[in-house]
Amino acid sequence: MSKNIASKGYAGKDEQGTLVPWNFERRAVGDNDILIDIKFSGICHSDIHTIKGHWGPEQYPQVPGHEIAGIVTAVGKNVTKFKLGDKAGVGCMVNSCMECESCKNGEEHHCETTGMVGTYGSLEKSSPSGITQGGYANNIVVTEHFAIKIPESIDLKYAAPLLCAGITTYSPMMKVKFKKGDKIGVVGIGGLGHMAIKLAISKEADVYAFTTSSSKADDIRGFGAKEVIVVNSAEDLSPWKGKLDYMISTVPYAYEMSAYIDCVKPYGSFTQVGQPVNGELTINNFNMIFNRVNFNGSMIGGIPETQELMDYCAEKKIYPQIEVIKATEINEAWIKVVNKEARYRYVIDASTF
Amino acid sequence: MSKNIASKGYAGKDEQGTLVPWNFERRAVGDNDILIDIKFSGICHSDIHTIKGHWGPEQYPQVPGHEIAGIVTAVGKNVTKFKLGDKAGVGCMVNSCMECESCKNGEEHHCETTGMVGTYGSLEKSSPSGITQGGYANNIVVTEHFAIKIPESIDLKYAAPLLCAGITTYSPMMKVKFKKGDKIGVVGIGGLGHMAIKLAISKEADVYAFTTSSSKADDIRGFGAKEVIVVNSAEDLSPWKGKLDYMISTVPYAYEMSAYIDCVKPYGSFTQVGQPVNGELTINNFNMIFNRVNFNGSMIGGIPETQELMDYCAEKKIYPQIEVIKATEINEAWIKVVNKEARYRYVIDASTF
Repeated sequence: MSKNIASKGYAGKDEQGTLVPWNFERRAVGDNDILIDIKFSGICHSDIHTIKGHWGPEQYPQVPGHEIAGIVTAVGKNVTKFKLGDKAGVGCMVNSCMECESCKNGEEHHCETTGMVGTYGSLEKSSPSGITQGGYANNIVVTEHFAIKIPESIDLKYAAPLLCAGITTYSPMMKVKFKKGDKIGVVGIGGLGHMAIKLAISKEADVYAFTTSSSKADDIRGFGAKEVIVVNSAEDLSPWKGKLDYMISTVPYAYEMSAYIDCVKPYGSFTQVGQPVNGELTINNFNMIFNRVNFNGSMIGGIPETQELMDYCAEKKIYPQIEVIKATEINEAWIKVVNKEARYRYVIDASTF
Repeated sequence: MSKNIASKGYAGKDEQGTLVPWNFERRAVGDNDILIDIKFSGICHSDIHTIKGHWGPEQYPQVPGHEIAGIVTAVGKNVTKFKLGDKAGVGCMVNSCMECESCKNGEEHHCETTGMVGTYGSLEKSSPSGITQGGYANNIVVTEHFAIKIPESIDLKYAAPLLCAGITTYSPMMKVKFKKGDKIGVVGIGGLGHMAIKLAISKEADVYAFTTSSSKADDIRGFGAKEVIVVNSAEDLSPWKGKLDYMISTVPYAYEMSAYIDCVKPYGSFTQVGQPVNGELTINNFNMIFNRVNFNGSMIGGIPETQELMDYCAEKKIYPQIEVIKATEINEAWIKVVNKEARYRYVIDASTF
């Protein structure tokens, strides 16, 4: 039996949420597994929410990170999808039952039996620490099915954020089946929001970007948004009432949603992908009976759709706007993410772990 | 110029919500108006919410009531839809601009300019009291467009509740375009909920009724529900997770929605027609990203659709289960409505005003 893999990364030790260097072990590379030498790892607001216990109690030490891009350095004997030296990525999940209808239909994130196994913090017998450990580290072992093939043409540092920020916005927008010239509103222009803008524009939508940070306006126009609406109060939204075909919100905290939802045309949809503390949002049904908008949530995408997104972005050269940081800068970066100072995705250079 | 019409009814005098007899005036019958001698008037939970100021500040004295059925006793010179002696009804609105797209498309309740004028409590210059006054009274003057023709075959006491409880549940269910055998969940089996059951069954859906009142179970089975789920806690809902094609909730207070919404199949819809205090509901986005349900609200229906519903119920003999009361019993009935003791709609005999 092969040996566990030594790994080093940054872990949260408690709900305080300060990350510290940590040496730990990954499971040995199994027959269906690949070992990825991580090159870059994106920082997502979800990492912060999770480690700080905003979504429920967690087990520590825990290494966050679910935007993982690297090079395959070992493959199990049954592996067919990857060979040594391939570029590979891991997003928000690393396992599921693979037998239920959802799994068979490529919606592994909606696995109906065990539920998906998250990339970090999920109970996992095969993991020496008892839970899955994420991508703020120098390597990861993962079942090949849950690894995404990263085309040669795309730089790994750009590929990493596609694995959460990209797919999480791509998946619900594709379900809407919007047409050229449709008006799509994006609320919250951070890591996810700026990808939503780029993806929607690549599919020929007109994008209306809603941000509370006036300092982002020039960047957002640079991403191609038709209009930037700087929102200081609900009044700033009233000119947009009933004007948009669809809206996606990436705001990761509870906020006054009603005036945003009102911007969608009757019988259109509004998708909330940002996950607030405890998931709780207040919805006003007076608004809902008048605006006639369908409110829904959406979570990442399945493996086939994530692969589709990765291939699409590589082909169309749709890259996130990133800032590469060292491991020692993670804690500072987290503070900036919370303070809306990220422009627009921090990506950790994994050689610094 | 013809004279104002003397009217007597029951009005709320303040947010305490105790109704007292009140003599007041309606506007004179205008060229496009009809005068209806009210025979029956239904009691809706909305009457209670409105008079008690649960949905915002109100002007008093105010006569509630928006389930109005009676006989036409005067017509203006331009009136073509009604003649003296006709049965006529009034629901939740009495005017709108009639010029915007929504009004022209028969969605007067979504009037885009002035907004619809509610049957009671709306500012209205033509009304001698300054606001519209509703149907807990012996007569009403209304523009003919906003009156519904009640077929001869349907008893007025059964027709009254169709004008709110009927149309409010019919309209969103028709939009879903459900098919024979589809599983429809109805949450909250009171005035609206029991009509939702009857209407859905008449269109060959299988209905699953969710109630917190075990004492209603036999009645509900009598209405034709396939199954009655008595809900004491969220656990009682877990067997229904992802099982229903559509769900409509009539619950008029804030409640734990998530476990109910979870009962709908992925990509199905959940419509909240009950309006809680201040309209505020808490929605949990963790549930929403997993259940993939579209949450929406719905408010009554337009005049053409209300007429359609009235004709449909008359033809199919779909009648509400009512209890006829005297004017002096209104306050007691309100208490019973709040305490879930109504079985299932109180209808006031207007001859007792």
